[in-house]
Amino acid sequence: MTTRADAEALDRVDPLRHLRDRFVLPDGLIYLDGNSLGPLPVGVRERVAAVVDREWGRDLITSWNTHDWIGLPARVGAKIARLVGAPADCVVAGDSTSVQLFKLIVAAARLRPDRRVVVTEPDNFPTDSYIIASAARLSGLDVRLCDPADVAASLADDVAVVALTHVDYRTGRMYDAPAVTAAAHGAGALMSWDLCHSAGAVRVHLDEWDADLALGCGYKYLNGGPGAPAFAYVHRRWHDQLDQPLSGWMGHAAPFALERDYRPAPGIARVQTGTPSVLSMATLDAALDAFEGVSMDDLRAKSLALTDCFVALAEERLAAYGVNVEVPRDHRFRGSQVCLRHPGAYGLVQALIARGVVGDFRELDLARFGFAPLYLRFVDAWDAVEHLVEVLASREWERPSYGVRAAVT
Amino acid sequence: MTTRADAEALDRVDPLRHLRDRFVLPDGLIYLDGNSLGPLPVGVRERVAAVVDREWGRDLITSWNTHDWIGLPARVGAKIARLVGAPADCVVAGDSTSVQLFKLIVAAARLRPDRRVVVTEPDNFPTDSYIIASAARLSGLDVRLCDPADVAASLADDVAVVALTHVDYRTGRMYDAPAVTAAAHGAGALMSWDLCHSAGAVRVHLDEWDADLALGCGYKYLNGGPGAPAFAYVHRRWHDQLDQPLSGWMGHAAPFALERDYRPAPGIARVQTGTPSVLSMATLDAALDAFEGVSMDDLRAKSLALTDCFVALAEERLAAYGVNVEVPRDHRFRGSQVCLRHPGAYGLVQALIARGVVGDFRELDLARFGFAPLYLRFVDAWDAVEHLVEVLASREWERPSYGVRAAVT
Repeated sequence: MTTRADAEALDRVDPLRHLRDRFVLPDGLIYLDGNSLGPLPVGVRERVAAVVDREWGRDLITSWNTHDWIGLPARVGAKIARLVGAPADCVVAGDSTSVQLFKLIVAAARLRPDRRVVVTEPDNFPTDSYIIASAARLSGLDVRLCDPADVAASLADDVAVVALTHVDYRTGRMYDAPAVTAAAHGAGALMSWDLCHSAGAVRVHLDEWDADLALGCGYKYLNGGPGAPAFAYVHRRWHDQLDQPLSGWMGHAAPFALERDYRPAPGIARVQTGTPSVLSMATLDAALDAFEGVSMDDLRAKSLALTDCFVALAEERLAAYGVNVEVPRDHRFRGSQVCLRHPGAYGLVQALIARGVVGDFRELDLARFGFAPLYLRFVDAWDAVEHLVEVLASREWERPSYGVRAAVT
Repeated sequence: MTTRADAEALDRVDPLRHLRDRFVLPDGLIYLDGNSLGPLPVGVRERVAAVVDREWGRDLITSWNTHDWIGLPARVGAKIARLVGAPADCVVAGDSTSVQLFKLIVAAARLRPDRRVVVTEPDNFPTDSYIIASAARLSGLDVRLCDPADVAASLADDVAVVALTHVDYRTGRMYDAPAVTAAAHGAGALMSWDLCHSAGAVRVHLDEWDADLALGCGYKYLNGGPGAPAFAYVHRRWHDQLDQPLSGWMGHAAPFALERDYRPAPGIARVQTGTPSVLSMATLDAALDAFEGVSMDDLRAKSLALTDCFVALAEERLAAYGVNVEVPRDHRFRGSQVCLRHPGAYGLVQALIARGVVGDFRELDLARFGFAPLYLRFVDAWDAVEHLVEVLASREWERPSYGVRAAVT
């Protein structure tokens, strides 16, 4: 790819090019931040309006049954299940990633009552680190930090659960999930994967990996809207034993019998806690239709092709300006994003945003660009590099301020 | 009130009658189920459409700052604070009631580390009972069930926290909250109030009560939509010490610094956990505008006037059909609802729904009617009793089936 015409040619033969039409993307915007907040899918506004006007406004309380609000967490879970290689009845949507992680780690500790350690990585996404520490404290476990390059070295027969994030939010490094899962099992531990930066962008196959537990968020590559419900996966082998601490009425075997004592529902339903947020859940439900008929293998192939293009162009054209491209070279270890390291990364990102190229800044000196294969084009990668060259050549990134920092990963 | 004209006369002089215009109520419907799901407030659909189209769809990730998504939990909390007699900076919105309760009970146990008991009531709303049991188990506490008529008898110097629901979801019985709070404090315990069936309908004054902790849901009398975010209150005296277990990044002192270790935010913000559900939060925010300029004392006065009317009419006209009116007679102990006990309560509720009078059924033989003072009229109470008389006189309630049971309290 040496000219923009080459990029256009790649787009013309891209078998997934029609999927871009499933999104409402502002004209001219190059949106490389779908790993932080996915864009608005077509059909969502109509669905939301119907939920507000007809289901809530007109049918009111009866909608729990007539519009099956009560079934949303399972229905949405089943849609996500296909994207992460899980049986439909092993995933449920709800709560936030942090809350789901808490449930799963405490539950894992209870499944391994004779063990005293949870293994995680030092540079896990912060909320994961905080929640794992809290769950460990309440469960009487110690936290052991592993070397992400050698998880096995931290495993022993004292480990209850290994809790890792499949794709690192800064570096884009992806674990060899089947191998790490096997190593955890080899030590008699459970394996829990955070799929926040994976689900909807890279190949995830919880069933093949034989993972025990997993969770992820709905608002990044799943495009479920700001603060969309998260999801949780539990392998079928644990369904009957899983004892999670946020044992609210929606996880009860008979929620509306209003029994005095908690009796967990069979299956994945027991991971539910409180009344589901219907508006957010319906939004995520509608958003997931953007994946309809899409093969995750095709999506992964396009993600790699996009990052390959961006990496090659960035290396060729930006090195002269002191930019270092930070991405795992080996496809097996690469997520769906690329970081550029540069001392002026903050100003760089702001200057790009002012030009309509949206990436984000990560401390201390990283400009992060997500390549969501559902809606991005090869010309977007090309144009982004063009803008980067212009910003660097003109030193636009040195301007005093481009406003406040973007807030949420 | 002996004729419909009397009811109409009461409506004409009702100083809150204009508030009904703040809701979208289906024509002809008598909605006595706002204690289960509040109706759609005017302005919500426009706000939701703006969040979807402009904030998410157009402004994308920048909206966390430009539309202050990040500030929503505190802004919504401040609006709720006024309705529950709390300082604006002592309430925050988020998660579900169940999740908020879990946080507060575990935190309370940590504030009283030398004590080993949580006191609650045997017929608490089930999710409260389940969550309190789980929080107690993780905190090494025992659960002690008190007699709601004599909470003090269960208090001693082993009690860490007393966790009660201000208004009972079935009986409508309301606690003398200042007295119970004082009794808890007298024993050296903390007091936590569940306000699910109180906030927005009866007088709540956490500050005057000197309550330590409180929580409630957004979708009943606050009209925030199905599964709306819940809220949590923490008295200012505990802000610096509060150590809650769902210590996600949104409760961190510097969420976007992405530090490795958890450092709780000052103030009520530390009760936050994961990324807030923006759509649901904005919906609740818009819904709360229905309370703008409304005095909670006026609202309480109207709530009592409505239930007084309904009770008097029901006693006079339904006793002949074997209906028993179950409601605390003393205003000091009455919530904003009335139950009718009848062996055919299930069919009764279904027959009423078929006639456009929506209440709900509660096991085993209760028909429950909520009187939300923001939008109900005295003619609604009158007409509801008229329908009840017709259903009972014609034995409509004996028809084989009126469809599935309504699902959610």
